[in-house]
Order: sequence, then structure tokens, then C-alpha cells
Amino acid sequence: MPPAREGAHVTSDDATALIGLDWGTTSLRAYRIARDGRVMERRERDAGILRVADGGFAGALAGAVGGWPLDGRVPILAAGMIGSRQGWREVPYVGCPAGLAELAAGLGTVAMPDGSPVHLVPGLLLEGPAGDFPDVMRGEETQILGDLAGGRDADACCYLLPGTHSKWAWCERAGRIARFATYMTGEVYEVLTRHSILGRLMSSGAAPDAADAFGRGLAQAARSAAGSPGRLLHDLFGARTLGLTGGLPPEGLASYLSGLLIGAEVAAVTAGDGVGTVVILGSGTLAPLYARAAGAAGLDAVVGEVDAVARGLHAIARAAGLIRGTDDA
Amino acid sequence: MPPAREGAHVTSDDATALIGLDWGTTSLRAYRIARDGRVMERRERDAGILRVADGGFAGALAGAVGGWPLDGRVPILAAGMIGSRQGWREVPYVGCPAGLAELAAGLGTVAMPDGSPVHLVPGLLLEGPAGDFPDVMRGEETQILGDLAGGRDADACCYLLPGTHSKWAWCERAGRIARFATYMTGEVYEVLTRHSILGRLMSSGAAPDAADAFGRGLAQAARSAAGSPGRLLHDLFGARTLGLTGGLPPEGLASYLSGLLIGAEVAAVTAGDGVGTVVILGSGTLAPLYARAAGAAGLDAVVGEVDAVARGLHAIARAAGLIRGTDDA
Repeated sequence: MPPAREGAHVTSDDATALIGLDWGTTSLRAYRIARDGRVMERRERDAGILRVADGGFAGALAGAVGGWPLDGRVPILAAGMIGSRQGWREVPYVGCPAGLAELAAGLGTVAMPDGSPVHLVPGLLLEGPAGDFPDVMRGEETQILGDLAGGRDADACCYLLPGTHSKWAWCERAGRIARFATYMTGEVYEVLTRHSILGRLMSSGAAPDAADAFGRGLAQAARSAAGSPGRLLHDLFGARTLGLTGGLPPEGLASYLSGLLIGAEVAAVTAGDGVGTVVILGSGTLAPLYARAAGAAGLDAVVGEVDAVARGLHAIARAAGLIRGTDDA
Repeated sequence: MPPAREGAHVTSDDATALIGLDWGTTSLRAYRIARDGRVMERRERDAGILRVADGGFAGALAGAVGGWPLDGRVPILAAGMIGSRQGWREVPYVGCPAGLAELAAGLGTVAMPDGSPVHLVPGLLLEGPAGDFPDVMRGEETQILGDLAGGRDADACCYLLPGTHSKWAWCERAGRIARFATYMTGEVYEVLTRHSILGRLMSSGAAPDAADAFGRGLAQAARSAAGSPGRLLHDLFGARTLGLTGGLPPEGLASYLSGLLIGAEVAAVTAGDGVGTVVILGSGTLAPLYARAAGAAGLDAVVGEVDAVARGLHAIARAAGLIRGTDDA
């Protein structure tokens, strides 16, 4: 079924059962969701938590979902950094393994000016082994559980969510997220291209990857992983010397760096964990790069549920008793 | 012999035989050197090549060595980024293996306003294996050859030169630099602390490493190297989550990150290469951190020749016939 257009007429069959929000650092995505989980309308606003001044979250929410029922009759459920220390209210992390029941039990609540509640999905905390460090996520757990709710075999796959901080997650057959790992690859790429000496030789050209610089970066990462693991801090310098010596054109250097970093990430995950099929959740420019890197490393990569976060919000809302599904009727 | 004080009286025995310059990106170090290689006077100026406007290198040089003989009778030899594309003149790299003879044969020359020459030491280029990337250095080769000139057994050690871009180098018994590798560790630390999300939780306190955060970072790097090599892009996130969860105090997070990065570098070098004794060339705050990381990895670390660059400049000048040593007399 195609997604409804913004502002489509709401019939009685299309009664809004849930307003779902994916509220991250830079953007706010809002979904008007039917009782059976269908997305009837979606909106995206440039209103991430870092762009909302003075804690004006209620106003930002009302602005984003203008025209939707906000009188307290329709539950509102939000996932993502809105539940972090920098968000509307910090909702304590829930420990792994965690599925719908654990997230539903850990919901936090804030109030709109009229007193009606907005429910916040908690993030996940994975305690590391003794001496290791913990890992955290906020928002991705909802996407993963949304994809799982579509009937995916959790045992045969792992999830990959590309982004500034990419997340890899492994689930139990019972539908719970067992463990996950964050890789700072995207942010490392950003700061190196924008603030390090590597950016000085880079230029963006009309054909930015004519030399398949991304593929060369992937190949270098694979060689290093096979021969001298952990060489990334050395390999980075290649994104300078290949520019200095004419081994790559200036407009290929950023892609080479991207290949080096994403290749190193995929190699590290592959070395440390069983992977199976990689289910990639997320659109944008990073997803195809990760799909290619996974393929180059011999992994099967598939694209997951497009509306995973909306499906996850619906499933969590049902688990929390905020709405009843059609099969409860 | 203690170094002479700035402006010490020049006796006939102390005739200046060479003005040696270590001219890098941020600073200019000048040495007045006797025929036997002794450093008679040293000066340091805030006049690195990026701080010299409009190519005014001759003026910067004259300003730094005011009062020293600049009339063309005493040769002037400079090493470092002054011979790069951003310097006074780009001197082509010399390939590895390279020792005093190869560097002497590759000297470049520029002229002072009176026409007297300033000789520039070339940098080194290491061609990678097919498909790999090349590596380069400018300035460190002179330090290494200066230390070797003191009689160190090149076969039993490798060199480590900490810095924004640290260099590891392996030499032949014949006194030539055989190969080397650059690690961007210092710059990665800088950009992550200054420009990434990791810096947000960091603070500098009165007791910046009371929790031995540096040691914890080293330990994490060692665990990763042993278990899941290449995990650095994941491990970086620990410098956030340990702050988020109270596992480390805010004033320890930068040290933890430093330990993670330096530990990963040392683990990568150790995994890929024979190391033996590590000779650390360079002072400053990084040298003791690297010494500790090397020790934690089971390597022997010793401090190399303090005036290595001046000794190297003297040895190269002799090899080039710019001066004659006392044993030629």
C-alpha cells in the first residue's frame, strides 16, 4: 500500500490510533498510525532535540503534527534522543536482552500543556564484560523491533543501522535484542575530512568516484584486516599520501577515506561476531555504501523494513497497552 | 658536555662549522654546530613554515640566527617541512632504503638574498606493495640518522618518533632507513577531542588522570587487539559511554581516549612487525605516554639521542662535503 499523502482525508476506517515520533538529534519524524499499524501519514521536520530552544519540546511537537488529534484521546509515543539527558526527559536505559515487553515496562512520560501524556521509549544499555565499557542506543532499538515484528528470523541475521554512529545488533529468536555495538565511523569520517590535514588535499568534483576510490579504500581495509589488524591509524595516512603522490585524484580522496573506514568497521564486525545476513535499516547515502562493503566482505546484505520505526512504535504501544491491535478487537 | 648558553663567547676552538635547522610546520629550531658535531648553541623560534607569511623564509631564517655567521662562509642545512610543497622549495623525496649518502645526493638548494645557498634535506618516500599506498616523512629521517651516527645497533631496534603523526622506522645494519610507517594517532586524538561528540563530556581537572584512565584505555586497546582486532572505531565510543554511565570521571575521558589510541597504534605495530628495543626520539608530553604503552605491550623502550636532529644534520653535511669532520683534518 502506498503511503498516504500529507493531509489525505481521514475516513472512519483510518482513525488515528497512535501518533508515533522518531525524535533524534537533528530531525523529528512523525507518523500517524492506524490501529493495525499502517502508516497513514508521515511528516519530517527540522526539529531535532539540538534545534529546539529552551526545552520547547511540547511546542515543537504540536507544530510538527498540526491537524492531528492532540486532545489526549490518541496516545503519543516517541523514540530516540528525546529520551536522553539532552532531550525532554531522561528515561533510564533498559538492560539487554530487551524486547517489546521490557521497553514497554520502561516507558517514561512527559506532559503536554493540557496535561495529556507523551510516552518516551527508553534506550538500551549493554553492560560490557568486566573492565570493558558499556554500549548504549536510543531510537535504533525501536527500528530493530519494528523490523522483527514483520516476521524476520532473528536467529539468521544481524542488524546494521548506518549513521553518524552506526549500530550493529544481534537478536534472540524470542524477539529480544541480545547485544549490539556502536561504531563511530561516520563521525570519524566527518571530523577527519573537516578538521584534519586529510581534508586539505580533498576536493569535490563532478565525478567524485570515477577512480573507484571507495573500492580502493575497501580493498586496503581488507588487506590490513588480513595482514596487520588494527592498522587503521596508519591506513588513514594513505588518504594523504595517495593525494600527495598522484595515486588518487583530489576528488577521490574523500571516497577513499570512506572506504577505508567503512571497510575497517565491517572487517572488525566480521572478525569478532557471527554475522549471517546483514539487514540494513535506514535510507540515505550511507546505506548503499555499507551494502557494498558488506558484499565485498562476503556478507549477504538486504534492506530491511522501510517504516521500521513506525512499526516498532506501534508494537511497543501495543505491548504497553496504549492501543489495542485489530486482533484484539 | 653541557650545551653552551645562548650567546656564549665563541673561541677559535668553537668555530661555527654548520648552521643546522630543524624547520617544521609549527616551529624552527636552529643549531650552531662545531666541526666535530658538538652543538654550541641552540635556539627555538615560533616560526614554522605555516607561520611564515608570503614565502618570507630568508627573513625568518636571518631573524632566528641573528649574530651567527650568515655571510656564506658557514654552510646552512635545513631538514623538515621546509623542503615540502608548502615550504621554501619542494625537494623531491628520496626512496628507501636511504642513508647519509642518499640524502646527501638528494639535497635541494635555495638562496639567501646575498646569493649564499641554504641546503635542504630531502624527505623519504616508501613505496607500498602493489595496490598499497606510499608513506612519506620529512625531518624524522635526519633525527634517525643522527641517532644512528652515535653508534646504535640498527639491527636490534626500531625507532619511534611521537608527534601529531607518529613515525615508526626500521633500519639496516649499514645505517640506512629500510622502511617506516606513519600513524595519524596524535591528530585523530586532537580532532576527536576538539570536534567530535567525545569532547562534550570531557573536562580537564586538577587531577586529570587520578583514575588511571590512560592505563584503562591501554588495557582496552590490548583486549581488542587480542580478541577482535580492528575494533578501534567501536572502542572510541567507550570514551563516551564511560562518561555517560559514570565509569570514568569527566577529567579522565581524554586520557582514556589517549590510551585507546596509543595502545591501538602500539598493538598494530607489534602485530605487524618485529620491534625489538624501541628507541624513542623526541621529548614533550607524548614520549612518556608512548614509553608506557610500549612497556605495557612488553616492549623495551629507551630514550634516544637528545640532539639527534643536530647530529643528523652534521652527518648529512659531512656526507655532502659541506664540512669536513675532525677526523678528515
